[in-house]
Amino acid sequence: MTDNPPQANGARVLADLNVLRSIGAYKTGVHKPTFSEAHMRSLEWLTQRLPEAGLAAEIDGVGNVLGKSAKPGPKLLAGSHLDSQNYAGWLDGALGVVYALEAARVINGDPRAGGGAVEVAAWSDEEGHFGSFLGSRSYVDAITEADIDAARDSNGRTMRDALRDVGLAGRARARAERGRHIGYIEAHIEQGRTLETSGLGIGVVTSIVGIWQYRISFSGEQNHAGTTRMADRRDAGLALARFCVAIDDRLPAHCSPRTVWTTGRITLDPGAHSIIPGRAEMLFQMRDDDAAVIARLEVLLQSMAAEVNAQGRCSVAIERIRTGVPATMDARFQDAIEAASLQFAGGKSVRMPSAAGHDAQVLATIMPAGMLFVPSIGGISHHWTENTDDADIATGVQVYVEACRRLLAG
Amino acid sequence: MTDNPPQANGARVLADLNVLRSIGAYKTGVHKPTFSEAHMRSLEWLTQRLPEAGLAAEIDGVGNVLGKSAKPGPKLLAGSHLDSQNYAGWLDGALGVVYALEAARVINGDPRAGGGAVEVAAWSDEEGHFGSFLGSRSYVDAITEADIDAARDSNGRTMRDALRDVGLAGRARARAERGRHIGYIEAHIEQGRTLETSGLGIGVVTSIVGIWQYRISFSGEQNHAGTTRMADRRDAGLALARFCVAIDDRLPAHCSPRTVWTTGRITLDPGAHSIIPGRAEMLFQMRDDDAAVIARLEVLLQSMAAEVNAQGRCSVAIERIRTGVPATMDARFQDAIEAASLQFAGGKSVRMPSAAGHDAQVLATIMPAGMLFVPSIGGISHHWTENTDDADIATGVQVYVEACRRLLAG
Repeated sequence: MTDNPPQANGARVLADLNVLRSIGAYKTGVHKPTFSEAHMRSLEWLTQRLPEAGLAAEIDGVGNVLGKSAKPGPKLLAGSHLDSQNYAGWLDGALGVVYALEAARVINGDPRAGGGAVEVAAWSDEEGHFGSFLGSRSYVDAITEADIDAARDSNGRTMRDALRDVGLAGRARARAERGRHIGYIEAHIEQGRTLETSGLGIGVVTSIVGIWQYRISFSGEQNHAGTTRMADRRDAGLALARFCVAIDDRLPAHCSPRTVWTTGRITLDPGAHSIIPGRAEMLFQMRDDDAAVIARLEVLLQSMAAEVNAQGRCSVAIERIRTGVPATMDARFQDAIEAASLQFAGGKSVRMPSAAGHDAQVLATIMPAGMLFVPSIGGISHHWTENTDDADIATGVQVYVEACRRLLAG
Repeated sequence: MTDNPPQANGARVLADLNVLRSIGAYKTGVHKPTFSEAHMRSLEWLTQRLPEAGLAAEIDGVGNVLGKSAKPGPKLLAGSHLDSQNYAGWLDGALGVVYALEAARVINGDPRAGGGAVEVAAWSDEEGHFGSFLGSRSYVDAITEADIDAARDSNGRTMRDALRDVGLAGRARARAERGRHIGYIEAHIEQGRTLETSGLGIGVVTSIVGIWQYRISFSGEQNHAGTTRMADRRDAGLALARFCVAIDDRLPAHCSPRTVWTTGRITLDPGAHSIIPGRAEMLFQMRDDDAAVIARLEVLLQSMAAEVNAQGRCSVAIERIRTGVPATMDARFQDAIEAASLQFAGGKSVRMPSAAGHDAQVLATIMPAGMLFVPSIGGISHHWTENTDDADIATGVQVYVEACRRLLAG
């Protein structure tokens, strides 16, 4: 036995990721909505791998996979998710799960680890098909049975029906055991271009943005698209388009440099060629790691809505349907990842906030948490063309395993 | 027998209209998509009424009802439609069919009519659930079997499947017989506020606008709504919103006083909260009775698209998917309706173009055609609150029957 501890096996990690890509494959990506056959097969695959890492595996009543160690020492919780956005990338979620699995395989059997262990989690529904971080929120005891009763996907299918169909109905939901873990670590693709454009290999996450979502509804008057003269119209769709443009014109003067906002969906009612829309709705989202910035932007949005309402042609109402919970990553976790980067990535790392939401922000509400990013080619995310260089994946897992080892060493 | 010919029975007309309203009722309106059970029951009701007016009735292979007279004299074709927009008004279409039925009941049995007869038509799919005036275009021989093969509704159901399900598959399509009719007359609610605001009872239609429709498609780059900074985005949805606003800002300087345009539907792809839309599409429509005006506006739209494409952030393509066919109403028909208005509506009529499309513009391609409007309360159309005063309905049918009599008298 040498003095060097065993290292992560990059080839094994790439092989595992490619197996997961073959389940629910779509072009070079995957299509694994929560509780789809492809998602469930991915969870089964993981439960079959976990014993190789000395972990007893179970799928709980909300679709979380948890691999638990019987070792007596300190335990680090590590994971991500195996569901995907529709027709999306192969690494979003899967990378963090396979890194966690690799860390458990390398560390849990190593006598140098001193009784400590990495435990592995795959959180259910991270991509929000049924709700917002339902899996990790279940684990931290932040949702009720009533929340699960109410959850449904965009097709109107209830989460209860989905759980029944995949055989999880009635199964207990796993909850965090107070004091069991020294913290939670998650790896993820960056989903942006910061690392790529700077030639860096590792992002050390400092904070995770909160996500605020809104339903913005416009009311006008439904009427005939031929016989209603332009001057007489109260076109809710046109009011919506003007509001979208006004948002883009006016928010930049009031936001922070990192604030982003998106109109992801627009619906005109009734949505026919020859009918002036009487109602229109947009789903709108803002992200920032500073809730005070969002509060300021909400005031601006409401004043813009008041202007529209004062004009009297159409009315607009803004309803917040999700409130962001920005999270700060633990300093010791940041330090461990940075030190591991110095060792295995030539120090090519940068401390940076995460502009995407992650289960780590939910886990951060009950334990120290940290995140590590690897580069995304072209910054592309939530699309099947999402990708990361194999070399960056291999470097990332070296850093990740070393960071885990340092955290367990205390 | 007096010297006065028999008159229209307003109470009978209102009773018939209320029977039709009870079939497929929705609040105070109706829901009768083409080939729905409510539409088919309305056609059956009509075929049972037509023999009372001396007409042999049939439903043809495209869903047109045609009531034919065996009388030897001149024949006037009269009608409208019994399908409706979704959850729309009770009079749109039904009024013109019941007026035609009433004219046939009053005139066809009257020996003073000198062997002449009113023949009644209810054209299929006037509201365009499967296509554009498919029923009347079938009658004037302007569509092929292949056109019917290709027709499908917004749910993707083929017209062939719908025809089979309602038992019309394989039935012959009725075609216009050259020289059979002296022309076509259609009554309709105005669907606008011209008559109401002027205190008039009858609109004498001079022309019918053409309807041009376009699919305007935007391409950007689908990406993550958190990690993609605002400056890096190529948001197809935002490009669409800006184009909508630009249309509304710039078309007024180039249109005619009667031009109208409408964006009836907007689709963002993929349409999710946390994804920047990579593609977006709007259904856009313009109407005018002057094709030269539309040609000018198309040049403007294309130049606006070229400006967007030159900026390079998103690209836009404009595809015309329907070309308008404006129609002029026959002068003799206009004169007959105006003279009848003088006799039965105190001369409270006005000559006016129709800003809505009607089957009369299709019939006008093969025979003289005329249209008569009655007022719409508040100008409301294509909505279940659409309505007309009972008194205006009763006055309208007096004028209509008299106009038919004058036209048949030659």
